Amino acid sequence: MKIIQGGVCAAKGFTANGIHCGIRKNRTKRDLSLIVSETKAAAAAVYTTNLVKGAPLAVTKRNIADGYARAVICNSGNANTCNAGGEQIAEKMCELVGNALSISAEDVVVASTGVIGQPLDITPIENGMKELVNGLSVNGGDFAAEGIMTTDTVKKDIAVEFELGNKVCRIGGIAKGSGMIHPNMATMLVFITTDAAISSEMLQKALSSDIADTFNMVSVDGDTSTNDMVTVLANGMAGNAEITEDNEDFKVFMKALNTVTVQLCRMIAGDGEGATKLLECSVSGAKDIITAKTVAKSVICSSLLKAAMFGADANWGRVLCAIGYSGADVDVNNVGVSFKSRKGVIEVCKNGAGVDFSEEKAKEILLEREIEIIVTLGDGNGSSTAWGCDLTYDYVKINGDYRT
Amino acid sequence: MKIIQGGVCAAKGFTANGIHCGIRKNRTKRDLSLIVSETKAAAAAVYTTNLVKGAPLAVTKRNIADGYARAVICNSGNANTCNAGGEQIAEKMCELVGNALSISAEDVVVASTGVIGQPLDITPIENGMKELVNGLSVNGGDFAAEGIMTTDTVKKDIAVEFELGNKVCRIGGIAKGSGMIHPNMATMLVFITTDAAISSEMLQKALSSDIADTFNMVSVDGDTSTNDMVTVLANGMAGNAEITEDNEDFKVFMKALNTVTVQLCRMIAGDGEGATKLLECSVSGAKDIITAKTVAKSVICSSLLKAAMFGADANWGRVLCAIGYSGADVDVNNVGVSFKSRKGVIEVCKNGAGVDFSEEKAKEILLEREIEIIVTLGDGNGSSTAWGCDLTYDYVKINGDYRT
Repeated sequence: MKIIQGGVCAAKGFTANGIHCGIRKNRTKRDLSLIVSETKAAAAAVYTTNLVKGAPLAVTKRNIADGYARAVICNSGNANTCNAGGEQIAEKMCELVGNALSISAEDVVVASTGVIGQPLDITPIENGMKELVNGLSVNGGDFAAEGIMTTDTVKKDIAVEFELGNKVCRIGGIAKGSGMIHPNMATMLVFITTDAAISSEMLQKALSSDIADTFNMVSVDGDTSTNDMVTVLANGMAGNAEITEDNEDFKVFMKALNTVTVQLCRMIAGDGEGATKLLECSVSGAKDIITAKTVAKSVICSSLLKAAMFGADANWGRVLCAIGYSGADVDVNNVGVSFKSRKGVIEVCKNGAGVDFSEEKAKEILLEREIEIIVTLGDGNGSSTAWGCDLTYDYVKINGDYRT
Repeated sequence: MKIIQGGVCAAKGFTANGIHCGIRKNRTKRDLSLIVSETKAAAAAVYTTNLVKGAPLAVTKRNIADGYARAVICNSGNANTCNAGGEQIAEKMCELVGNALSISAEDVVVASTGVIGQPLDITPIENGMKELVNGLSVNGGDFAAEGIMTTDTVKKDIAVEFELGNKVCRIGGIAKGSGMIHPNMATMLVFITTDAAISSEMLQKALSSDIADTFNMVSVDGDTSTNDMVTVLANGMAGNAEITEDNEDFKVFMKALNTVTVQLCRMIAGDGEGATKLLECSVSGAKDIITAKTVAKSVICSSLLKAAMFGADANWGRVLCAIGYSGADVDVNNVGVSFKSRKGVIEVCKNGAGVDFSEEKAKEILLEREIEIIVTLGDGNGSSTAWGCDLTYDYVKINGDYRT
């Protein structure tokens, strides 16, 4: 398996584009993205568990109920949520795409991201559709990745190449993250494409299984969005024998998918609103996987630890504290904690109590951009990883005045 | 019932003091507090549910197992948690108090607050004990309140006077709060004294019942401390007939206790680390109280809403979002949201969707120091209130470099 260029257009038969249509005031910011498969593709999706759900999610759910789709339309700047008539607007978006591409409106996945509770004006989308479709290209993945960004500071894409029965296949994806990121059964917006041939059922199985260890283990601020969604389109153009059961090919596909999703998780966490650091908490020695996950997520969500990491302060007591209130069954007298970055690794806590360590060395390690918090529980073989970011002045700044 | 002066010394027979003994480097900051009852007092306490528990909690638990105590000793600057030999240090603190007051060491409640994971040096406490005891006075409540402060910016005390069978009784308390505040079954450090006569059993019953609606409904940062503790000492010196059952007197006592605890909750939340605003979320119309509590707490804990309140931004979509992911059983199409302060009240959401409102008026309301977020669920009669604060640059500043 190797990392390749092309993002959401790396897989054969996919084109994309992203334009500024006018939903956002800033004319330099793309706000409407489109991804299209040359042929009908198996489609799978997972959605937010927030009871307040964005209108586009309901429409997407209906549209891919048959297991297939052809295109993805997504706007930024407005979440199309908690407003009157949101579903009709989302359906209208699908209809506009359907008309422009001469495909069924019911083969379109629709998503929105941005402010909640304001009507989404269809006019700029309608006016921009021609430009959007005319600009579709195999090089358009970057534009599509930009069009779904909100407070993201960098576009997020990744693609891998792998083989299934001597056929070269590709999986690529784009994501937006940044704020209101604490997915539960789904996540922020992630669009993944592949040219591997795989049935809708197995595609959904692969996605549902993967997100439990990837997107559901990311937290920026503990707030689960109303519009989280991850979708995968698989158009089969790689020509491999279609995956229809849990065989060796499925395992290879899962591994490729996981490579893509883990990288997207890291990109989303590292570009959390205001973040200066990517935090990765790896827990091992838990009595089971659930315990490992609970602990990893609790550590990564602690506001106090996040602020300490911003200050490059090796305040491991906050790691212990977060483990203790996580609700997980842990013997606190066995807990070990180390901090690691490319500058090295330092043990700061052993058997639940502090060990002597060089504050200078700890500072050097924690001043890096990517920090790993290594927790050992000494209770068993369960392990898990969660991703997050530090809590900074800029998080407060960004969210203190988001709407205006 | 009326509010009176005197804090933890308002009740008859209680003296207190607080000094700088040298645990903290800043010589102007008191770091050791003592509260003493003239006679043996019924004692009740509740503790953190964090699996990582401060050493003083274990010692306190043993010491009040018989239902009685005479004194409370508490230091700030070091939590005496996750370090070797912490319990021996906590016992030594009790012993020093016992010797100085000629009482049993086992009649002493001990507490610590500050950094986790560093050894607590007993020397400054030993050296300061004489000064601490010599300075005990009925006017010492302020000093005691100051001695338990960490990042608190104001001391927190309150007292009320009420009658039980024509006897005037008093309840007073002091608290420290500020950071790592998200109590679960107990809270930060709160010391309450009363001269009402009440049995240990009924005192514990009153406290355990009260905290479910008070301290457990406060959150500053979602982090449940390792050292949370609330204790009440009742020395009976008011001369009322001892409360030994759930009678009318008990109800009056509960009401007086609740008046004290609610005010302490508001003080703790309003003085949350870096806070510029006290947030109060009142939920009504829930199908039951648990649902109301879940919703109120979820709203008050949302980082995004907290940041919006800092920016005086009426971003009610974040209230809806927090209700949606709270896990509570709510019909989101019935939800209403209003913001209220002493500048007035403004409805921003009705039946789960936005209503037209004056942004100017909303801004005026939200620029105040105390904000009420009123949520109506339209599902039943359950109601609840939670307290929190806004998320500010200063929270990040304080916690980015707490230890150094």
